[in-house]
Amino acid sequence: MEETFVPFRGIKNDLKGRLMCYKQDWTGGFRAGFRILAPTTYIFFASAIPVISFGEQLERNTEGVLTAVQTLASTALCGIIHSIIGGQPLLILGVAEPTVIMYTFLFNFAKERPDLGRNLFLAWSGWICVWTALLLFLLAILGACSIINRFTRVAGELFGLLIAMLFMQQAIKGLVEEFRIPKRENTNLTEFIPSWRFANGMFALVLSFGLLITALRSRKARSWRYGSGWLRSLIADYGVPLMVLVWTAVSYIPTSSVPKGIPRRLFSPNPWSPGAYDNWTVIKDMLDVPVLYIIGAFIPATMIAVLYYFDHSVASQLAQQKEFNLRKPSSYHYDLLLLGFLTLLCGLIGIPPANGVIPQSPMHTKSLATLKHQLLRNRLVATARKSMRKNASLGQLYGNMQEAYRQMQTPLIYQEHSTRELKELKESTIHAATSMGHMDAPVDETVFDIEKEIDDLLPVEVKEQRVSNLLQAIMVGGCVAAMPFLKKIPTSVLWGYFAFMAIESLPGNQFWERILLLFTAPSRRYKVLEEYHATFVETVPFKTIATFTIFQTTYLLICFGLTWVPIAGLMFPLMIMLLVPVRQYFLPKFFKGAHLQDLDAAEYEEAPALPFNLATEGELGAGASHIDEGEILDEVITRSRGEFRHVSSPKVTSSTPTPENGPKSLQSPNSTYSPRVGELRGEQSPRSSGRGHSPGTGEVRLSNLGKSPNTSSK
Amino acid sequence: MEETFVPFRGIKNDLKGRLMCYKQDWTGGFRAGFRILAPTTYIFFASAIPVISFGEQLERNTEGVLTAVQTLASTALCGIIHSIIGGQPLLILGVAEPTVIMYTFLFNFAKERPDLGRNLFLAWSGWICVWTALLLFLLAILGACSIINRFTRVAGELFGLLIAMLFMQQAIKGLVEEFRIPKRENTNLTEFIPSWRFANGMFALVLSFGLLITALRSRKARSWRYGSGWLRSLIADYGVPLMVLVWTAVSYIPTSSVPKGIPRRLFSPNPWSPGAYDNWTVIKDMLDVPVLYIIGAFIPATMIAVLYYFDHSVASQLAQQKEFNLRKPSSYHYDLLLLGFLTLLCGLIGIPPANGVIPQSPMHTKSLATLKHQLLRNRLVATARKSMRKNASLGQLYGNMQEAYRQMQTPLIYQEHSTRELKELKESTIHAATSMGHMDAPVDETVFDIEKEIDDLLPVEVKEQRVSNLLQAIMVGGCVAAMPFLKKIPTSVLWGYFAFMAIESLPGNQFWERILLLFTAPSRRYKVLEEYHATFVETVPFKTIATFTIFQTTYLLICFGLTWVPIAGLMFPLMIMLLVPVRQYFLPKFFKGAHLQDLDAAEYEEAPALPFNLATEGELGAGASHIDEGEILDEVITRSRGEFRHVSSPKVTSSTPTPENGPKSLQSPNSTYSPRVGELRGEQSPRSSGRGHSPGTGEVRLSNLGKSPNTSSK
Repeated sequence: MEETFVPFRGIKNDLKGRLMCYKQDWTGGFRAGFRILAPTTYIFFASAIPVISFGEQLERNTEGVLTAVQTLASTALCGIIHSIIGGQPLLILGVAEPTVIMYTFLFNFAKERPDLGRNLFLAWSGWICVWTALLLFLLAILGACSIINRFTRVAGELFGLLIAMLFMQQAIKGLVEEFRIPKRENTNLTEFIPSWRFANGMFALVLSFGLLITALRSRKARSWRYGSGWLRSLIADYGVPLMVLVWTAVSYIPTSSVPKGIPRRLFSPNPWSPGAYDNWTVIKDMLDVPVLYIIGAFIPATMIAVLYYFDHSVASQLAQQKEFNLRKPSSYHYDLLLLGFLTLLCGLIGIPPANGVIPQSPMHTKSLATLKHQLLRNRLVATARKSMRKNASLGQLYGNMQEAYRQMQTPLIYQEHSTRELKELKESTIHAATSMGHMDAPVDETVFDIEKEIDDLLPVEVKEQRVSNLLQAIMVGGCVAAMPFLKKIPTSVLWGYFAFMAIESLPGNQFWERILLLFTAPSRRYKVLEEYHATFVETVPFKTIATFTIFQTTYLLICFGLTWVPIAGLMFPLMIMLLVPVRQYFLPKFFKGAHLQDLDAAEYEEAPALPFNLATEGELGAGASHIDEGEILDEVITRSRGEFRHVSSPKVTSSTPTPENGPKSLQSPNSTYSPRVGELRGEQSPRSSGRGHSPGTGEVRLSNLGKSPNTSSK
Repeated sequence: MEETFVPFRGIKNDLKGRLMCYKQDWTGGFRAGFRILAPTTYIFFASAIPVISFGEQLERNTEGVLTAVQTLASTALCGIIHSIIGGQPLLILGVAEPTVIMYTFLFNFAKERPDLGRNLFLAWSGWICVWTALLLFLLAILGACSIINRFTRVAGELFGLLIAMLFMQQAIKGLVEEFRIPKRENTNLTEFIPSWRFANGMFALVLSFGLLITALRSRKARSWRYGSGWLRSLIADYGVPLMVLVWTAVSYIPTSSVPKGIPRRLFSPNPWSPGAYDNWTVIKDMLDVPVLYIIGAFIPATMIAVLYYFDHSVASQLAQQKEFNLRKPSSYHYDLLLLGFLTLLCGLIGIPPANGVIPQSPMHTKSLATLKHQLLRNRLVATARKSMRKNASLGQLYGNMQEAYRQMQTPLIYQEHSTRELKELKESTIHAATSMGHMDAPVDETVFDIEKEIDDLLPVEVKEQRVSNLLQAIMVGGCVAAMPFLKKIPTSVLWGYFAFMAIESLPGNQFWERILLLFTAPSRRYKVLEEYHATFVETVPFKTIATFTIFQTTYLLICFGLTWVPIAGLMFPLMIMLLVPVRQYFLPKFFKGAHLQDLDAAEYEEAPALPFNLATEGELGAGASHIDEGEILDEVITRSRGEFRHVSSPKVTSSTPTPENGPKSLQSPNSTYSPRVGELRGEQSPRSSGRGHSPGTGEVRLSNLGKSPNTSSK
């Protein structure tokens, strides 16, 4: 993304980029068929459950003015609009915790003013939304999102981890609450005598840990050893929603002699109960708000605008991390502009606005990466099987598979990349075939084990489309109608789900992985190297990694502490934005530029928007074909993808154990890992300080060819 | 073991064999130092907890005549005597479930006879013990244990799995009980109102699953990635007892407003309460038993004798499985004789007798294998470190390590074996060093990563000694005094522990592994081959494995069903003994002899007792040195150890990835696994039917050199 502050230019670029792949956003989604339902359901639950829970919280805090019906409606409405006319369809919108805290504060303020009161609260908050929308328009038009360029991994991942901590905190708080008498309830009910309260708490522990453990296990079903492929696949795809169902069913097992209120279940009014729709006509009351309050609304509006600007952009950024190998362009400016409109709309119909949410947005991308992997895999397996039936030789088989792979790649520019991948496959299979002496014979499964070879072969790719986002938003909308069913879910299952979301958001977060590395016994660090790992593990001395991580952890804990401060706590985004200057001016004083760049790759500094657009244009067959394709390829592969390490799946190496072409990290462990262990122990070998060419792999580090304002300025 | 029915010959052979290593049994144990405490504590808990639980059960069933005090006393007494003068010190003795069922039946019978009654019950059961002892003497003298030769893996493992099922059943029953009112209790107590009962049940679920999950995890601590080595080691060694402590502590967290009886805890009278020692003087009353009952006692005595003969021998056999690479001889006949004396002793002092228990006995051997591994490892690591400090070359380092390894091997005959092991290490390290060009330079950790290399190098060996058994028996005795503390353990922790024991007994049970293989998706079967696996996986077609396993499972379920039949259920050992003729005459009609032999190696048919004795004599320096050592070596390695596969640790292969000498199962997966997957799928390749020489490994199958009455008779 270009760093520009020329008014409207950012929005224009975004629109141009996204419009070119707009048609493919839909066709690609529909072409995935019913399989798109897997990521859809997964994200629907991740999106709906917190929204319902925040809705309950809001209901308690606003004396029933706003309920889960309103938060669900807002999430569904904003989600549907964003998925259709939004820029980045990977971004998931929802009513988030900061919004709830903000609205609670506003309600408490309004309630005590005689000229506002409970009745004019929604009208007043409508005015706040108007101001917020104006501020967001301004920010979008003036290109404020360009600053996202400077917003590096260190800040984004810190924010991600902070959100995970807040979710986990909510889970723990919720569980502790299960042992107490809830505030809104009649304390004379049977279920609140000490014995039943204790029973309820213990039941809650069973249900929430049951959900957490089984949900985490089911996500890994694909690598289970037992059960047939389709069953494992089904469990991995739909395991989490399934577990919510299962544990809700379990909660109904103890019927006899247990009071109805145990375990506690979701509480929300039916959407058709009287008064549930009072808010929709709030626009009528807006002119009744005293002028002083209309003007005063600007103050909370600035806070909300900063919060949304920050949340929305970071959620979008985390959904588009380098590791995902995304092929379609980002759209920060335009999405912020749209968020302004959405906020205005929500304000005028009296519902709390939605914004981009973490961890749902990165979870969405991850689940789509899995989908794309499956689609590619199925196609290649089918092709291979067909070739074998026709008694094709290995050469023909390889040709057919390459052709199939190419057909699946929408942006044509990726041909060279795909060729590279399949070449590795070819080499390894030919190697195997030659050693067994049947090179020209028809291939059979003894030479080419289809399922395994293809699994090892595929790189990380994401099915980027709009259908899953649209469907999940519609399903969230359906929740409003399904409220009587949702009310059957025990709150404890909800707390387990919060913990699940916190844990699910951790893998892939390098900050988290570095924290784990600190606790890894020195003698076990070689295991990290045997697996897929980030570059810094090999290029940065351990002491530097440790210092950097401890600094970041301290910063995280300060931010976490800030969230406990009543209303000022809302401003923790400012603390995280403060990381931008800290990273740019303070950190380089303590760390080597090269190390900083490896520990904290500024993701978008290497990703110019232009090549994407041209490439997509090429796909659409419009005019761009006269541009030399090789050049674009170079641009894209070297600059937007950063390093080859990310492009080639780590698994590929296991199928190419020959020392000549396999990345070094997975060669026979005996002969090569030791020097690297040495490095990890802080005994930096001379080779590991060699930049631009990482030791022994023949892999050229390309990341520092890109412009890197942060580190090269030093 | 020789199959002999000449009176006394079996006992004489056993005594001769064990006497020769008797001194080493003690010196070896004491030389292990404080580390022996790890397996001791582990087995102490595995031994004491079920005994206490069975004691409680007995107390309810015998109206308090026998309690946990008596079962603990019996277990401690028999354990101490057996560990000192018993034959096989790996065998753990304890009061087991069948004994409890038997005594319950006897009590109910006696209670209703006016001339016996509650008062003469113990005296009468004393007479039963007298008869049982006589029968056991007869069985031991006549060499009945020789039949253990015919008692193959299929029967032993079926019995092991059956016991695991019974433990698991007990765990589940116990948990369900937690929701109900216990029989012996006053139903008017607060803790038995429905709400508290429900609370108690839920709390029990939390505690038992908490214990189960954490205990299972802690056993694997050694392979954790986090935490320092000593901490991981500590957790792995003492994790299970520690978890019992931790969860007992957790059970004390909810103090306020929770009645004292929640969660339920162990119930047993203090050993110093009046009447707790009535039983000790039972011998006085024995002549008061009417003669008819004295003679009639012979009938239950035959049942108990068959039960003990069977249980004791199978427990001993499972503790001495081929995989453990034991070096000291077995002692079935002598141990059965001693069991007769122990039964007599227990009968005369009015406590229920103890016998060899499953799964504790095999658990004991496994924990000692871990200990031996650690001891060897520490020694070799220290040697390697020392050599490096002295700037030794790789050749010197290797020489020193080989010397250290040799010193650790008590039976001198194992020299060739050790040489072979270390040769592999030498080759792989030299290979690595050469490829990096510093063959003659001093070794450093970059060439030779001590900890990892040595971990990969060591074969399975067991620290065979008497100290751990003696200590655990003394500790069980100490439990009688520690009863006030034991009473603090919640019963739910106990149920979790039962489940833990059931699960811990599964790994290494080939029957269980075959059941898992049936559920393994065909596309995932290659994963089994990548790991350590039994020979049959490669040599027997999948369909045959499946048929055999389904037959065995059906048989298991019939046995399990039998245990539910009130008193006839006690005779399920007869069902399992019936497997001997079934295996010998029935199965060969349906399965190929070669397949049967791989699926069901008759363990002791290949292990003659004589070479052991001579070898041990050699160790003691007495006379036997004139026998050609090479010959003995051949005998022992080829016949008693069965296959090299068992001798060489599977891990060794990972350090020797060169195709020339590494066993094929762990070479580059691409080039070799496919044919074997083919075999697993039932497409038996011509090579896999080649016996005596398994395909492609250069590994000579030695097992069929031994005499094999079962399969070669076909």
